[in-house]
Amino acid sequence: MPQGQPSVVPDDGLTTRQRRNRPLVMVHTGVGKGKSTAAFGMALRAWNQGWPIGVFQFVKSAKWKVGEENALRVLGASGEGGTVDWHKMGEGWSWVQRDLQGDNFSNEEKAREGWEQVKRDLAAESYKLYVLDEFAYPLHWGWVDLDEVIEVLRDRPGTQHVVITGRNAPDKLVDFADLVTDMSKVKHPMDAGQKGQRGIEW
Amino acid sequence: MPQGQPSVVPDDGLTTRQRRNRPLVMVHTGVGKGKSTAAFGMALRAWNQGWPIGVFQFVKSAKWKVGEENALRVLGASGEGGTVDWHKMGEGWSWVQRDLQGDNFSNEEKAREGWEQVKRDLAAESYKLYVLDEFAYPLHWGWVDLDEVIEVLRDRPGTQHVVITGRNAPDKLVDFADLVTDMSKVKHPMDAGQKGQRGIEW
Repeated sequence: MPQGQPSVVPDDGLTTRQRRNRPLVMVHTGVGKGKSTAAFGMALRAWNQGWPIGVFQFVKSAKWKVGEENALRVLGASGEGGTVDWHKMGEGWSWVQRDLQGDNFSNEEKAREGWEQVKRDLAAESYKLYVLDEFAYPLHWGWVDLDEVIEVLRDRPGTQHVVITGRNAPDKLVDFADLVTDMSKVKHPMDAGQKGQRGIEW
Repeated sequence: MPQGQPSVVPDDGLTTRQRRNRPLVMVHTGVGKGKSTAAFGMALRAWNQGWPIGVFQFVKSAKWKVGEENALRVLGASGEGGTVDWHKMGEGWSWVQRDLQGDNFSNEEKAREGWEQVKRDLAAESYKLYVLDEFAYPLHWGWVDLDEVIEVLRDRPGTQHVVITGRNAPDKLVDFADLVTDMSKVKHPMDAGQKGQRGIEW
């Protein structure tokens, strides 16, 4: 993104500085590649600023993205930038006790449990960047109440940035978000009969 | 990206495994955010595979992306994954002698010098992932010969993946590439009068 000038100066009573540092809700949606990848790329910048980062992977199986996870864990433990907490729904969430994990709970319940923790962390201002990876899906499916999510995000305290990824981001979320990018597929190797490969897809 | 099955099985004489491991040329274009960010996110996966990574930033001023750069340098030096070489046109390229740097050379000459090094590295198989950041611009402007770029990429030896970012990727490059994603802007805070901010934009 080239550095640019805003095209309008809003009459919102904020100084440029206040407006600049306003925390953002960002959405990466669309059917193309790069939605999650760009969110984890953003985490590199946040890490470099020394921000605490919370990743919540709202996917059934969290085998993928192990590259990003390992990289961010190494960065978080390097002592040079911010910290990284990486939570996976696929393993039953790290804060949930062992006996509540596994197949006793539906994916819908697990997704809701993930959101409950995000709410607690937002209230406690645990992180400065939240990556809610694939969170658009439980919202799209109605597993997590969209109106509540928007209300909680709108009223979150302090300076907490949130990026939500996934296809089919609901219109209401797109309307509410500050920054929305749609990743469109122009061409993908699977169209030419090529399967995903190590180092590229995961 | 969900894991999927290819929609066609091509009659190209390759086994699935050979086809799967075919090196890719990827393009991230469009006017939205996330083109470079997703490319650096991909570098996390490559790093996790232990691949040597070469980043070439084809931008006049390489002040931006310092977060990604610092993070990848820390990862490259961690001894846990692959290595990272990060070259910046904005500082006159690392391989160019000091007395050839600076303002004695035009951006066009610098861009061409960058491409010459990429060619040398491809011939030497220096890296397994090349991030040619913002390389679409010198191609779009005709500073670097597009036909030569495609020829060199097509004939590159071994297994070397290349990702090219930037707006206005030329049609010929899009036609040639294996994977193309267009990042479309749906909404950006600048439209609402908000300037870029630390940790988010850089």
